[in-house]
Amino acid sequence: MNNGHTALTMQDAILTLQNYWSDNGCMITQPLNTEVGAGTANPATALRVIGPEPWSVAYVEPSVRPDDSRYGENPNRLQTHTQFQVILKPDPGNPQELYLGSLQALGVDLRAHDVRFVEDNWASPALGAWGLGWEVWLDGMEITQFTYFQQVGGVSLSPVSVEITYGLERILMNLQGVSHFKDIVYAPGITYGEVFGQNEYEMSRYYLDDADVDTNHRLFEAYAAEARRMLDLELPVPAYTYVLKCSHTFNVLDARGAISTTERAKAFSLMRGLTHESAKLWARRRTALGHPLGVTAAPAPAVRAALPSVPGPETLLFEIGLEELPYADVPATTDAVREVITAKLAATRLRHGAITVLATPRRVVVTVEAVQPREPDTEKTVRGPKVAAAYKDGAPTPALLGFARSQGVDPSALKTVAVGGVEYVAVTRDEPGRTAVEVLSGVLTEVVSGLRSTRNMRWNDPNLSFSRPVRWLLALLGRSPLPVTVSALVAGDTTRVHRTAPDPEVRVTAAEGYAHFLRMYGIMLDRADRRAAVVRGGQELAAEVGGRIDVAGQAGLIDEITDIVEFPHPVRGSFDERYLELPASVLTTVMRKHQRYLPVLDGDRLMPHFVTFANGACDDDVVRAGNEGVLRARYEDAAFFWRADLKVAPEEFRRRLDQLTFEDRLGTVADRADRIAALALDLAARAGLAEGALATVRRAGELAKFDLASQMVVEFSGLAGVMAEEYARRAGEPDEVALALAEMELPRSAGGALPTGDAGAVLSLADRFDLVTGMFVIGAAPTGSSDPFGVRRAAIGLLNVLRRVPAAAGVRVGDGLNAAAARYAAQGVEVPAGRLEEAAELIARRYEQQLTDAGHEHRLVQAVRVWADRPAQGDRTLATLERHVGTEEFGALTAALQRVVRILPGDAQENTADAAATDPVDRNLLSAPAELRLAESAEAVRDALRGREDDLAALIEVSAPLVAAIDAFFDEVLVMDPDPAIRAARLALLTDVARLARTTLDWSAL
Amino acid sequence: MNNGHTALTMQDAILTLQNYWSDNGCMITQPLNTEVGAGTANPATALRVIGPEPWSVAYVEPSVRPDDSRYGENPNRLQTHTQFQVILKPDPGNPQELYLGSLQALGVDLRAHDVRFVEDNWASPALGAWGLGWEVWLDGMEITQFTYFQQVGGVSLSPVSVEITYGLERILMNLQGVSHFKDIVYAPGITYGEVFGQNEYEMSRYYLDDADVDTNHRLFEAYAAEARRMLDLELPVPAYTYVLKCSHTFNVLDARGAISTTERAKAFSLMRGLTHESAKLWARRRTALGHPLGVTAAPAPAVRAALPSVPGPETLLFEIGLEELPYADVPATTDAVREVITAKLAATRLRHGAITVLATPRRVVVTVEAVQPREPDTEKTVRGPKVAAAYKDGAPTPALLGFARSQGVDPSALKTVAVGGVEYVAVTRDEPGRTAVEVLSGVLTEVVSGLRSTRNMRWNDPNLSFSRPVRWLLALLGRSPLPVTVSALVAGDTTRVHRTAPDPEVRVTAAEGYAHFLRMYGIMLDRADRRAAVVRGGQELAAEVGGRIDVAGQAGLIDEITDIVEFPHPVRGSFDERYLELPASVLTTVMRKHQRYLPVLDGDRLMPHFVTFANGACDDDVVRAGNEGVLRARYEDAAFFWRADLKVAPEEFRRRLDQLTFEDRLGTVADRADRIAALALDLAARAGLAEGALATVRRAGELAKFDLASQMVVEFSGLAGVMAEEYARRAGEPDEVALALAEMELPRSAGGALPTGDAGAVLSLADRFDLVTGMFVIGAAPTGSSDPFGVRRAAIGLLNVLRRVPAAAGVRVGDGLNAAAARYAAQGVEVPAGRLEEAAELIARRYEQQLTDAGHEHRLVQAVRVWADRPAQGDRTLATLERHVGTEEFGALTAALQRVVRILPGDAQENTADAAATDPVDRNLLSAPAELRLAESAEAVRDALRGREDDLAALIEVSAPLVAAIDAFFDEVLVMDPDPAIRAARLALLTDVARLARTTLDWSAL
Repeated sequence: MNNGHTALTMQDAILTLQNYWSDNGCMITQPLNTEVGAGTANPATALRVIGPEPWSVAYVEPSVRPDDSRYGENPNRLQTHTQFQVILKPDPGNPQELYLGSLQALGVDLRAHDVRFVEDNWASPALGAWGLGWEVWLDGMEITQFTYFQQVGGVSLSPVSVEITYGLERILMNLQGVSHFKDIVYAPGITYGEVFGQNEYEMSRYYLDDADVDTNHRLFEAYAAEARRMLDLELPVPAYTYVLKCSHTFNVLDARGAISTTERAKAFSLMRGLTHESAKLWARRRTALGHPLGVTAAPAPAVRAALPSVPGPETLLFEIGLEELPYADVPATTDAVREVITAKLAATRLRHGAITVLATPRRVVVTVEAVQPREPDTEKTVRGPKVAAAYKDGAPTPALLGFARSQGVDPSALKTVAVGGVEYVAVTRDEPGRTAVEVLSGVLTEVVSGLRSTRNMRWNDPNLSFSRPVRWLLALLGRSPLPVTVSALVAGDTTRVHRTAPDPEVRVTAAEGYAHFLRMYGIMLDRADRRAAVVRGGQELAAEVGGRIDVAGQAGLIDEITDIVEFPHPVRGSFDERYLELPASVLTTVMRKHQRYLPVLDGDRLMPHFVTFANGACDDDVVRAGNEGVLRARYEDAAFFWRADLKVAPEEFRRRLDQLTFEDRLGTVADRADRIAALALDLAARAGLAEGALATVRRAGELAKFDLASQMVVEFSGLAGVMAEEYARRAGEPDEVALALAEMELPRSAGGALPTGDAGAVLSLADRFDLVTGMFVIGAAPTGSSDPFGVRRAAIGLLNVLRRVPAAAGVRVGDGLNAAAARYAAQGVEVPAGRLEEAAELIARRYEQQLTDAGHEHRLVQAVRVWADRPAQGDRTLATLERHVGTEEFGALTAALQRVVRILPGDAQENTADAAATDPVDRNLLSAPAELRLAESAEAVRDALRGREDDLAALIEVSAPLVAAIDAFFDEVLVMDPDPAIRAARLALLTDVARLARTTLDWSAL
Repeated sequence: MNNGHTALTMQDAILTLQNYWSDNGCMITQPLNTEVGAGTANPATALRVIGPEPWSVAYVEPSVRPDDSRYGENPNRLQTHTQFQVILKPDPGNPQELYLGSLQALGVDLRAHDVRFVEDNWASPALGAWGLGWEVWLDGMEITQFTYFQQVGGVSLSPVSVEITYGLERILMNLQGVSHFKDIVYAPGITYGEVFGQNEYEMSRYYLDDADVDTNHRLFEAYAAEARRMLDLELPVPAYTYVLKCSHTFNVLDARGAISTTERAKAFSLMRGLTHESAKLWARRRTALGHPLGVTAAPAPAVRAALPSVPGPETLLFEIGLEELPYADVPATTDAVREVITAKLAATRLRHGAITVLATPRRVVVTVEAVQPREPDTEKTVRGPKVAAAYKDGAPTPALLGFARSQGVDPSALKTVAVGGVEYVAVTRDEPGRTAVEVLSGVLTEVVSGLRSTRNMRWNDPNLSFSRPVRWLLALLGRSPLPVTVSALVAGDTTRVHRTAPDPEVRVTAAEGYAHFLRMYGIMLDRADRRAAVVRGGQELAAEVGGRIDVAGQAGLIDEITDIVEFPHPVRGSFDERYLELPASVLTTVMRKHQRYLPVLDGDRLMPHFVTFANGACDDDVVRAGNEGVLRARYEDAAFFWRADLKVAPEEFRRRLDQLTFEDRLGTVADRADRIAALALDLAARAGLAEGALATVRRAGELAKFDLASQMVVEFSGLAGVMAEEYARRAGEPDEVALALAEMELPRSAGGALPTGDAGAVLSLADRFDLVTGMFVIGAAPTGSSDPFGVRRAAIGLLNVLRRVPAAAGVRVGDGLNAAAARYAAQGVEVPAGRLEEAAELIARRYEQQLTDAGHEHRLVQAVRVWADRPAQGDRTLATLERHVGTEEFGALTAALQRVVRILPGDAQENTADAAATDPVDRNLLSAPAELRLAESAEAVRDALRGREDDLAALIEVSAPLVAAIDAFFDEVLVMDPDPAIRAARLALLTDVARLARTTLDWSAL
């Protein structure tokens, strides 16, 4: 028993949250009595958020994640953790504020701690659900998931629900200042470990070691069958209950390592389908029951106030107040709003000065200087019928009379205008300028209602859609409030500053100097200021411990930090030096990806420090301690795996790959590694690698993928390859082999780093050729948005290596696919006809897409698409093409070659770029001088290009005589001679000429 | 949505209980995330109560009872109801008071309501658990189960835990005054029905109609296998979790009607075994972990105060204060305490007046009048060696010296005493009398520590064991407190009155007039007073509505009521007249068995009223309303079944019996009904029933057991037969057939009513012969305490019918068993050799036991045991025997016959009572006069008994000459003649004589 603690116990925390949310209008219900992975899965969320009925509920949910089993040893990870789940349906409009209130109820001093809303877009494929929102960080620890649900079970939600999911263990660890979940005081005199420790150990044993795989497979099938039957009987509740049982059983099998990629895809598809049907059935049933809980009303549209008159040129201040935007949306939205407002104002006659748009995660601020009080007056002329048709015999025709009537003027008021030398009747009317207030009111409404991001959501406003909810508008013209309404929003003269400020909503009296105004409230509006503050703060704190920040290397991370906070307040933390035994790559990956900390370096050596940035002022000691605790837990995880993995030789890990299924029909991961090893040697030969590199390929091939069996990679899958290198090196493998093992996994993303070594390059290619080929072989090519095995990403990776790594240039796509198919065939996998061609076509399309995305002109891309099999050559050709395409000389060449091609019959045109065979042509039949000259020119060009037939630049260089010869030929010779033999000879000559050029690009596309 | 309620919502109730128990030292935890039937099954109870560690916890538990599914239509029954579970380990000593405090926290006015603790001995075969305690009734509604756990998972508990299980729906229905669970206000603005209604409907559909039986059977097997594996791996937590999954799946199958009796027995045995192992494993694991939560200390033994001196004869008052005793224990304990104290005082020299023992459920009060202040002084003489051995030559021998030393006296102080004419040395010493205080203090301690009931429990006192906890002692001698200590208890001068009294503990100043003292506090100490008050109160309230109570008919119930309350306060309630459409038997069964209400009759006709008895004063209107609500719910249930069942013809029900498995190897219930029908006709022929009765047997046989398929009997199994009669009558069957169907089920218990009609009697026999025979056929005969099919009860029923119902007298046990076996053989069930003999032997042993239990002399019982095959004849013989057994005449007959039997060789003795064949004897060899006279006498007796050979009375009547002839024969004739032929003839004659008598009883046993 653990006595003497006075902090809130876990039990108190639960009672406090129940009371808080009950007081705020939620029902309190109980956890589900079947295992779920999260409170979201409970039908009190998963089904109840569907449909129009209001539903606000809060409950505890012990959430079972077999994969997180750690025998109770990991300080921060449990097979069952305790969620506190809140659903607010409809969105009450201030859910973040309500949430912060609950933290205060728990005793969290919001001014001391750093509470941040960090972008997190939630999606559950199994539930067919997604939503946008945040992880809430308390001093760097994710304590809550906060999501606006958009879709569940494939059903779009209307109204949208707010989901708030507290991770109670994490909150309690922070509040009680303990570093292991077992030390949390659960109730007076008893710790969490004392209550749940044995359960953690034993259930971990079950999930990780002892669950019977066959039995659980059978359970999965049985549950799925019951779910199916219940759907057929139109009973969504038991149906969905069985889906949940499926899901848990799946998770058990997964934790036991008994789920192959195919099984995963199949199981997810099955569960998603059943969930969708359950959800739709639920919606139908509630409709049939007449929505017993009533129907939620949307907020009423706002009514715009009368427009005031504002004299003299004034500055416009318009602020769009938001809930925390994702970092990438901050600059993107800044740009988009600037473009839109500029364009929209340009479409009016209102004159104004400079337009500035600045943004933080919570606000986009538009400033327009010197806005004139009103548009100038003008005249507008409307044209009617031609004068010739307007009068007949001096009298108005019906056409004229009709026009006058339609314009509401007397025919006598019409005048005449001349357009293009033709006279028309016309009416001219005065167009008085609108006031600035009227113009701006309309424009700004459109700006807000037109906001869009790459990923958009809805909230309680039925007419708006954006990356995150728009919660307030501030509009001032000079010192006058400017009436702007957008759906249910009305612009006012207040803004919202930090939520923890004594007065979080403040009045703004003037448009001028708003950035300075905000600065007084601890908000840096200008992104450049914030970025500079991040860099400066980081460097200063690093310098205090004799270190530095790698500003250039961490530019991306610094950008992120800049757009996550409204005021970057740097806090330096440290970690135990003993974690430095871990590879720096592991440590920095955790810091950057998981925590957004800037690593502190001594030269190039990692120091046991980091810099984090709170969103504004806080109690540095509190925030430091919290963040250090979080990092400690993550490093503890990593260190545990590291030490465990180091006890196992790479060869042993490699052997264990035969326990991991890659794909049912394509064998184990060990089979795949074998194929990659063989394929890499084949490709190395084609690429002409030197003997040393070949040896490296051979050894790395023997160990290929071994780290997939390591605990570190099972846990941090992003470290695949990285760990292979580390572990191989420590096992005494040569540096080149270790590096090759790492580079086999590159590139990790479309723009990711590429292999630097020759061995790594061919291994990377082998890996990707094997994947792409295998998936086409079994008919699992990507379709639409479905690409579970990442075939498209592999294709892009292939192309990037082939295009950018010199050693790989000798490898052709077709050869790679064929060689990979041969490895499959050797393993007894049948390769259906046509599949490799489909694979090649997919890669060609990706190549085309890459070039288009890079901004190359469409017709040029089409012209070099023939090089998809050798994309590096394609790139060179495209570069040459772009250098020459505007020149007269190249134009002549193109025109000449196109003439040649056009006259050739279709089958001769359908030649491939690398066709080499020559038809037997009776050159003796060629006798005209132009014919002979052309034949000679062609021969000369062929000679000049020998050995560089693919080289467009060379062709251009030597092509001038040929162009002249072609032109002369067409001027002087009739190709379609009545004598078939002569005709054939001439066509053969032209075919010969066409072939000279066709090896370089598709001229017809130009 | 339901607005406007101001009573406590269900959500508030949960929060209130959580806060209350948290304030009283409990941890608050969450429901289990797998389906359980009760909070008890949650490991936070089922496992944590095992072992010495303290553990106090409270949690909500949604409890799933598939069998209780009612599609949400029944006002009081749900497939998932909400329990609030509290475990107090160790027993804090005042758990009832803590519990009542929680009701007050919920807003229950304890003075207005009738809160009673009604005996309920809880046992869960599946959990291998039992405990003693109560149902707590709130105005007649069971709202809480209150149990002192004694054993769980087959493990005896030390310390004992207190379990308090609230049924929240019922409490809330009472508090909110609603009559359907759906109308409970769950949270402000939302009802229980709105939250859970759809779930109730759909899960009811699943459990009752749609769950796939095969799938659930497979799930059961899979779960059991996982549990087995986990036990082998020594992981009690997952093992037990899988036992719970087994249990839920079993319940699903049961609700679907897919569990046969054998399957049930097998499944329970399996689950019990797995639970036991889980529990033992848990205990071992906790021991291995060193009991991390510490070890509970038992209360320290009390120290007795110094004994005061009390002058003059005084009255002793000794009260043993208890928690509510079961009603049957009140008179039993009264008698036992009276006997013990009388005997113990008699063993002392303390003189005293009358001893009175009176009791209520909460106290046993001993009064001893005129207790003298002390025992009289006396002398005690201790005998030593014989004088002859004490002195040798006048000097003391070592024997004498040793004796003197052992007695601590000088040899000179020895004197001489004469015993049986022999002289011994002896020592005489004064024995001063002890004070009354000293004597009583010892005796009363022994009385308390020696308290035992038929079923005993332990509580927080480690040294006591009784039916319910002893919580206080009051001991006064006159006006002086008398020091008595028993284990940790110390007697004081206070008693406890009603817990709802303003001052529940009051001081008692004098032993005299205690009954009157208690009466002032609303307690009737004298059982006779209470019983009279029940009768009087019932009659008075019945008279107010023109009715009466059937005091004689309800004597047993009146006894129960008398011993349930300390002060019977009658309250009359009514129910809707429309329920009178239900059979009176159904209505009164519910009133009496479930509610302990006295039915109100108008003549013999049931009126829509009842009388209940609160324990002391209350708000009659509140208590009436509560009880009426409870009865309404129960009648609603019954009416629902009644109406539904009436729509189905008996023949249709009879057909549906083929859906119910009787026993795997013995077929369905329909098969059993077929056998009973055929067997009954067979037995009816043997019994010689008249044609009319035969027709009744035939028709009743066709419908046999049909009501087992009715919903009413599925729900109220005790109404089997009763409903058959009701439904058959309403379906137009003749009265005799309806009655026969009812009587087929008689007797229901060892002393239960027997069939009155001939048809009913043979059907009853057929039913029981079929059951007993079937179970022996498949080797499922009862062993030890295991008799799942009730074979012993069936055997007793058989015997009672055969012994008491005249029409059945013609049926022999052996014939019945053979005929039943023939029916099984006809259905293809093999009947192994010897099994019918085993069955007959079991029945014979039961018969013997019945006679012994009825107080018949052992040797007489042995003498008539030969009649087990025809027990009615046995009874008659025994009666005759008992009339004659002391007479000289009978003694002579017995002696004569025993002489005859003794001289016969063993094989001749081993004749059965009904042996009839005669050996060929050469009577010509008999020549001596005594021989001839004996032969003549035997012949005369045979003639006299012809047609009544079984009749002992007749034998005795005519036996005098035979006795004389036998005596003469033995006096005059040497049986063992040297001539073998003569010897044989004489033995044959004696055998003949023996046979005459042996047909009546086993003379050798006399």
